Amino acid sequence: MTTPDRTRHLLTLENLGRERILALLDRAAELRASWRAGTLPPLLAGRTVVNLFFENSTRTRTSFELAARRLGALVVNFDIASSSTSKGETLEDTLATLEAMDADAFVVRHKENGTPARLAAHARRASVLNAGDGNHAHPTQGLLDLLTIRDRKDRIDGLTVTICGDIRHSRVARSDVHGLAALGAGEIRLCGPGALLPDAQDFPQCRVTDDFDAAVEGADVVVMLRLQKERMENLAGFDEATYFARYGLDATRLARARPDAMVMHPGPMNRGIEIASDVADGARSAVLEQVANGVFVRMAVLDVLTRG
Amino acid sequence: MTTPDRTRHLLTLENLGRERILALLDRAAELRASWRAGTLPPLLAGRTVVNLFFENSTRTRTSFELAARRLGALVVNFDIASSSTSKGETLEDTLATLEAMDADAFVVRHKENGTPARLAAHARRASVLNAGDGNHAHPTQGLLDLLTIRDRKDRIDGLTVTICGDIRHSRVARSDVHGLAALGAGEIRLCGPGALLPDAQDFPQCRVTDDFDAAVEGADVVVMLRLQKERMENLAGFDEATYFARYGLDATRLARARPDAMVMHPGPMNRGIEIASDVADGARSAVLEQVANGVFVRMAVLDVLTRG
Amino acid sequence: MTTPDRTRHLLTLENLGRERILALLDRAAELRASWRAGTLPPLLAGRTVVNLFFENSTRTRTSFELAARRLGALVVNFDIASSSTSKGETLEDTLATLEAMDADAFVVRHKENGTPARLAAHARRASVLNAGDGNHAHPTQGLLDLLTIRDRKDRIDGLTVTICGDIRHSRVARSDVHGLAALGAGEIRLCGPGALLPDAQDFPQCRVTDDFDAAVEGADVVVMLRLQKERMENLAGFDEATYFARYGLDATRLARARPDAMVMHPGPMNRGIEIASDVADGARSAVLEQVANGVFVRMAVLDVLTRG
Repeated sequence: MTTPDRTRHLLTLENLGRERILALLDRAAELRASWRAGTLPPLLAGRTVVNLFFENSTRTRTSFELAARRLGALVVNFDIASSSTSKGETLEDTLATLEAMDADAFVVRHKENGTPARLAAHARRASVLNAGDGNHAHPTQGLLDLLTIRDRKDRIDGLTVTICGDIRHSRVARSDVHGLAALGAGEIRLCGPGALLPDAQDFPQCRVTDDFDAAVEGADVVVMLRLQKERMENLAGFDEATYFARYGLDATRLARARPDAMVMHPGPMNRGIEIASDVADGARSAVLEQVANGVFVRMAVLDVLTRG
Repeated sequence: MTTPDRTRHLLTLENLGRERILALLDRAAELRASWRAGTLPPLLAGRTVVNLFFENSTRTRTSFELAARRLGALVVNFDIASSSTSKGETLEDTLATLEAMDADAFVVRHKENGTPARLAAHARRASVLNAGDGNHAHPTQGLLDLLTIRDRKDRIDGLTVTICGDIRHSRVARSDVHGLAALGAGEIRLCGPGALLPDAQDFPQCRVTDDFDAAVEGADVVVMLRLQKERMENLAGFDEATYFARYGLDATRLARARPDAMVMHPGPMNRGIEIASDVADGARSAVLEQVANGVFVRMAVLDVLTRG
Repeated sequence: MTTPDRTRHLLTLENLGRERILALLDRAAELRASWRAGTLPPLLAGRTVVNLFFENSTRTRTSFELAARRLGALVVNFDIASSSTSKGETLEDTLATLEAMDADAFVVRHKENGTPARLAAHARRASVLNAGDGNHAHPTQGLLDLLTIRDRKDRIDGLTVTICGDIRHSRVARSDVHGLAALGAGEIRLCGPGALLPDAQDFPQCRVTDDFDAAVEGADVVVMLRLQKERMENLAGFDEATYFARYGLDATRLARARPDAMVMHPGPMNRGIEIASDVADGARSAVLEQVANGVFVRMAVLDVLTRG
């Protein structure tokens, strides 16, 4: 398997490079301005984008779909449950079949790390966009988080960013860290219950702690991750209330961060578990800006990769 | 919860007012003429309509989808089963997320009364269109029924309209009655087996009876409702044959109505249970006109509410 | 039930006639050239195509959907599982309802032979395209196979074509045979284990055998059919390895065919059961050309049937 071409595919932000990341953020901001001015051109007219979601995610799929269709692309939501893949066809044959129908890009979500890379290695001409694979990467989430921080803070350089929750299983944390490090964040702190913290060597750039109060202290940005209910059941000694008490972000805890600290969450949120409702809905929350930017970042990625 | 804005949302025909209802019917007729002349303009180009169907209804969803897309809107069918809502996200957060992606209108069907109103109260900018909630309202069905009657009869004023079937659980009956009353129908008769009749105070405008022969006598319009199989099983002493004998519309019974009486049904029909096939397919039946008008009424509602 | 109009519907290639088949192939080739030159006009703008798939087939549905949408049609994927049909509505009423919404064409797949013909007999104005019914017919698969053969061989006339696999249950084999015979193929050989061979009278044009080596000898074209796993379980004495040994196409067996013989498969392929991977991916394989041509053949059928 050859290394996939970074100018054709987007598989991870790791080692993507500062320049390439900044170019995508700048393009997203340009497309956002065009959309809001009502002057977005149909840059992808005649192109076909296929959503290949092997894990449910209406939110991310809809964001990609709106991005592609607003740029004039034709989008096919490939229904995995009733597809040839479920009839024993290899994933590579499904990809080759859809490429033979002149698909230009595949948006892939899969529970196993590396599936998008495997498909990218097999694609003859089409682009592969990773929409989340296992706990490996979710690069468009990373990009939209970077854009949202840059919108509010005017920079990434030197910022202190705290990410809290189930870091061990989180592709969002990984892509955020790769993006933040590439753009020169000052300190990245990872926090969560011990059982949900990552192996230390996975995040050499970061400070890792299970003390949330300390992790929030003086932060410019606090990113809260969704806690999957199944994980909580495996956390000895935790229930929703104890989790919220120790790792939930409420106004008191947020007061430890900088006065102008911003709060983020990739959604969907568990209100009252990892985040208090007044924080989620407060002036410091950038949650809905993240969602809005998601569409523009995906437009930029589709535009840059397929029209390159 | 504030009262939702009637110029932005369509939640019920109750108290909507004669002028507003007539404006929607007139707009539907205009759009119908444009469509049939091949000159329908893409009035909703650049707009995004989200179908949020928490109950299955391919018929109604397809009607809304065709209405929106023929006007140039981009339509997203939000898949509830695989959505964040099923991951514990609140419905309000799902709405806010989709609004952040610049959704302009939500078409909502839900088994609980009031869900569309609840979402309308929460929407910051988007329109909410009720596509049926519990037994509360189905306003576009009411509007398409009014348009279909007006097409054939040239008026609503003074007409005698009989609605027969499971009135108690029917949102169609409620929206029909609200619309007919607003436009001055002469007499509205509600008929069905006792267990399926509504509480008297729910329909102060109507004559309620369990005698179908009497209810049909001299009617200008006969609206037959679909009987859900589950309901019949709970009706003591009824099976399909006895239901049809007492509350089914066949040619003999229809002969009691006016010679030019028209027959309606919101579909899907149970032939041989609430309606005889020869009546359903006969010259007096306006069933397919109702379906056709459904698309135009939904176009009108989308146009008037989102473009104001 | 009247005989459906062959200029409005496509139900089978049987008795369709050489001229009509050639006209469809020629139109497909024209549309292919336009698409590849980036000059395909929106011939179906304003038209509505409804996919009615009562059997799962993402591959065929996607091919039809791309064909229609690239020609500018609006496509609705009618969700059978949540539709009125599942609420007891007759299939004819579902069709009539969608026609009342101004559907122009129905693409129908159904496990029962004759369902598309039944719907065609009922359609008042719309075209019905058979996308596969039982083991009766799959006419667009037949057409795309003919186009693919003609592309490589410049003719159909006089060719020796071998079709191997589960002939008995295959609508692909039936439509291939009808098309090949109409265009003057020299010899058509059908091969498979005895239990999967058809009744002799079903294929009077063909030589039928259970000896694959003999059937491949000197062939110009070898069409391998997918073996459904359920069928194998009912084949006494067969497992995957024995099936592949006797009826799988590998390089050794292919060497018996003409040196320039081409290999085809309708997909999805069971690699290592009916076809060896090196043959499937080799230079003689036309499998991906079949897929590509599928889209253009479906464009041609939609264009010719709905625009006349």
